[in-house]
Amino acid sequence: MKRITFWLAATAFFAGVVGFTASARHVAEEDQEIFVKQIPPGYRDWKLVSVAHEEGELKDIRAILGNDIAIAAYREGKLPFPEGAIIGRIAWRHVPSDENNKVFGRAQSFVAGEAPPWYLQFMVKDSKKYAATGGWGYAQFDKEGKPGPESDLKKCFPCHQAITDRDFVFTRYSP
Amino acid sequence: MKRITFWLAATAFFAGVVGFTASARHVAEEDQEIFVKQIPPGYRDWKLVSVAHEEGELKDIRAILGNDIAIAAYREGKLPFPEGAIIGRIAWRHVPSDENNKVFGRAQSFVAGEAPPWYLQFMVKDSKKYAATGGWGYAQFDKEGKPGPESDLKKCFPCHQAITDRDFVFTRYSP
Repeated sequence: MKRITFWLAATAFFAGVVGFTASARHVAEEDQEIFVKQIPPGYRDWKLVSVAHEEGELKDIRAILGNDIAIAAYREGKLPFPEGAIIGRIAWRHVPSDENNKVFGRAQSFVAGEAPPWYLQFMVKDSKKYAATGGWGYAQFDKEGKPGPESDLKKCFPCHQAITDRDFVFTRYSP
Repeated sequence: MKRITFWLAATAFFAGVVGFTASARHVAEEDQEIFVKQIPPGYRDWKLVSVAHEEGELKDIRAILGNDIAIAAYREGKLPFPEGAIIGRIAWRHVPSDENNKVFGRAQSFVAGEAPPWYLQFMVKDSKKYAATGGWGYAQFDKEGKPGPESDLKKCFPCHQAITDRDFVFTRYSP
């Protein structure tokens, strides 16, 4: 009886291993998909999450927007972000405003200038499709709407994964 | 006959002067109203016009939002702005992000921090009500929603009136 039980258990175990391996292979195939290839429609009408300014090589000023799912999650403090959440960032050159400075009588004002090389970036939440990169697919587009090369996009998650306590999202909501 | 014509003309002229003076006095009374006393409801859900960064005494990073009337006018290049247009700006302290800089390995990232003393500002288009200040009423509020003193608000239009070719609005729309 003991022997029969052992074989039954062993068979179930190996069946499980085979099943797991097949499933892992399936996930591994899906994992290839870590990039978003289309600009999410209507993004320019989305609500504001926050703003930021990058110096260094970027020298841009940026707005971070969210679709309704992302904004609701931000406002409710819901983590991880729900499926379908999309966070977008639009960047512009950080340029001094001669017009403003002249009126104010001081050199203090910087505004949004031209689009930089990578004008738009998005994170799209789909836990299955983008399982390999924390459930987020990444994308960037130039001002003509051309997507960035995969070699660049592979650099997204290695940085984002540092933000473990906010579901890999850098930007906090600014009330 | 010439004399009668003269008197008729003179009477008409003086009647006109009296009418104009009365009308000017009426406008002058309305002109007192140059301030907006309430935070426009729902402003945090408005669409983005642009972003900016002020150094000097302000040291803030800001988002400029517009209600639907303002956004439509901006996108269509419609000037002057139609009645009911409202433009709002939210400011936050321009602060370095230690979290971002640590991940990027460079000190380059600035984000939105706490609310500065004058957290919110608005321009509300009502050509009759705010005739004395270019058709725009001005407002600012602290983070508790307390409106700014009239002495401060009197300083708005003297600067805004420099922007004659864009209906007294500093911020341009960033696509």
